[in-house]
Amino acid sequence: MIDYQLLDALAAIVSEKGFEKAAKKLFITQSAVSRRIHQLESMIGEPVLIRKQPPKPTAIGKRLLNHLQQVRQLEVALSIRSLADENLQDSPLTVKLAANADSLATWLPEALMLPKAEKVCDFRFEIIAEDQSIALKRMKAGEVMVCICSNEEPINGGLVSALGAFRYKVIASPNFVKRHNITSVEQLTELPCLVYDEHDKLQHQLLNELNKSVPKYTHICPSSEGFKQAMIAGLGYGLLPTLQLGDAIEQGELIDLVPGYFIDVPLYWHYWQTESPQLKSLRNFAIKVASNKLETLA
Amino acid sequence: MIDYQLLDALAAIVSEKGFEKAAKKLFITQSAVSRRIHQLESMIGEPVLIRKQPPKPTAIGKRLLNHLQQVRQLEVALSIRSLADENLQDSPLTVKLAANADSLATWLPEALMLPKAEKVCDFRFEIIAEDQSIALKRMKAGEVMVCICSNEEPINGGLVSALGAFRYKVIASPNFVKRHNITSVEQLTELPCLVYDEHDKLQHQLLNELNKSVPKYTHICPSSEGFKQAMIAGLGYGLLPTLQLGDAIEQGELIDLVPGYFIDVPLYWHYWQTESPQLKSLRNFAIKVASNKLETLA
Repeated sequence: MIDYQLLDALAAIVSEKGFEKAAKKLFITQSAVSRRIHQLESMIGEPVLIRKQPPKPTAIGKRLLNHLQQVRQLEVALSIRSLADENLQDSPLTVKLAANADSLATWLPEALMLPKAEKVCDFRFEIIAEDQSIALKRMKAGEVMVCICSNEEPINGGLVSALGAFRYKVIASPNFVKRHNITSVEQLTELPCLVYDEHDKLQHQLLNELNKSVPKYTHICPSSEGFKQAMIAGLGYGLLPTLQLGDAIEQGELIDLVPGYFIDVPLYWHYWQTESPQLKSLRNFAIKVASNKLETLA
Repeated sequence: MIDYQLLDALAAIVSEKGFEKAAKKLFITQSAVSRRIHQLESMIGEPVLIRKQPPKPTAIGKRLLNHLQQVRQLEVALSIRSLADENLQDSPLTVKLAANADSLATWLPEALMLPKAEKVCDFRFEIIAEDQSIALKRMKAGEVMVCICSNEEPINGGLVSALGAFRYKVIASPNFVKRHNITSVEQLTELPCLVYDEHDKLQHQLLNELNKSVPKYTHICPSSEGFKQAMIAGLGYGLLPTLQLGDAIEQGELIDLVPGYFIDVPLYWHYWQTESPQLKSLRNFAIKVASNKLETLA
């Protein structure tokens, strides 16, 4: 049996980004924290931490943290049965969750607001914003309990629920269209294109489908709302979720450049097989909210 | 005189996150890239790269990259004089810029859309979203040409222009106020509070000023628009820029919890002393837009 005090020390060092702060969090001395890590490493036979600022888990360290995350969830599930409803209001359950920025800026906050009737306990959310294509790495590394991303394949020890699809449309402002005198989609290849970050390949997919080309000229703008504001300002065109459009098209602020065309990006809720009843109630509510907000998966 | 081929190799390895991709970017072989780094290190007498995945510059490596960034700007300023207006339309100038997420979601995109009359060339923006308190590190590290943050002190070799101040107000939704039966600000300490990320200390400042306390119960939500959506959904209260409020208060979606109270966070435009004419025109236009959107600095 693993001594979980040792894993707790590892987790605290990683989350608090240092031995000193970890000691404070665990209410022990810094040398006690160091001792626990040494003990863990002599038990495992290899380093669990890369000693730099901030300290990072090694590959085996990540596997241990991943394991700890699952054990903690099991413990939460256990405690709810034994403690019944006693004092649950006073100790919210911390849910670490990785989600893509577009979800965070649109449907997700509402989905985290579980109605009282369906609530087993209070939640405290620690959200990590991550590109939908890479958020799952956070789950594999044992950093989060839930991951909302476009990957359909569950990870080892994990399960997956479908949420729906984000519908992206090709959007620009009227002044952008006028300035570049856009009359056909072939022109888009040469015009300034907005890209969220280095992982965002949606605009590349668009130009590949429309023109068999890649964007020649991109602005990088890593903010969901900033993306929309950059479109309104006329910096470039790009793919925007219909959920973010609001009434911008009706108001004449933005234009759908390729009416009838869209890219649907599926979204999935990844969770551990050891899901606690609390997280299950959260997942079920999120699925309900998503089904009202997102497109139905093809 | 430094051999800038060597610094270019270092910059490419850091930006491309590896030797192989750097080689591709520079159109040379991977072993040529390695050779350049070895040459640089034997010249300097210490390592410029931490060899891990992805490779990171050492302290001296960062200083070299910082220097390279300034030299590149000087070169841009030079080329504009020699090339005059010839073909400038065809080769946009890449501007790497670090900004706080709230600027990116509100006034900044408009400020980057320089009108044709004031434009010396086309820009291609690579924006990095960073907390206002730490964005300046990106500039010190030589990763960006411009940094928009709350730090008033220019860095070594840099200058600073004041932009104005972000005004933050204490905001929650009507259902949040009703559910927690909020009648006085003293209650806020115990109630769920929204925090952008680990660097965001605004809510701590608020509770310290109002109640001499710290938030007991925080949700972490690293998205400007997600922050507002989480408030509307009723997950917690927090500080929201008045620029992001829109008509949410008039529409009854959100409530100003402490009318008359606000926190003003100053914003500055950091740039290098070697600023090119193109970046100067950009800075002047940004100052103009900011003066219309932000509060006047006290």
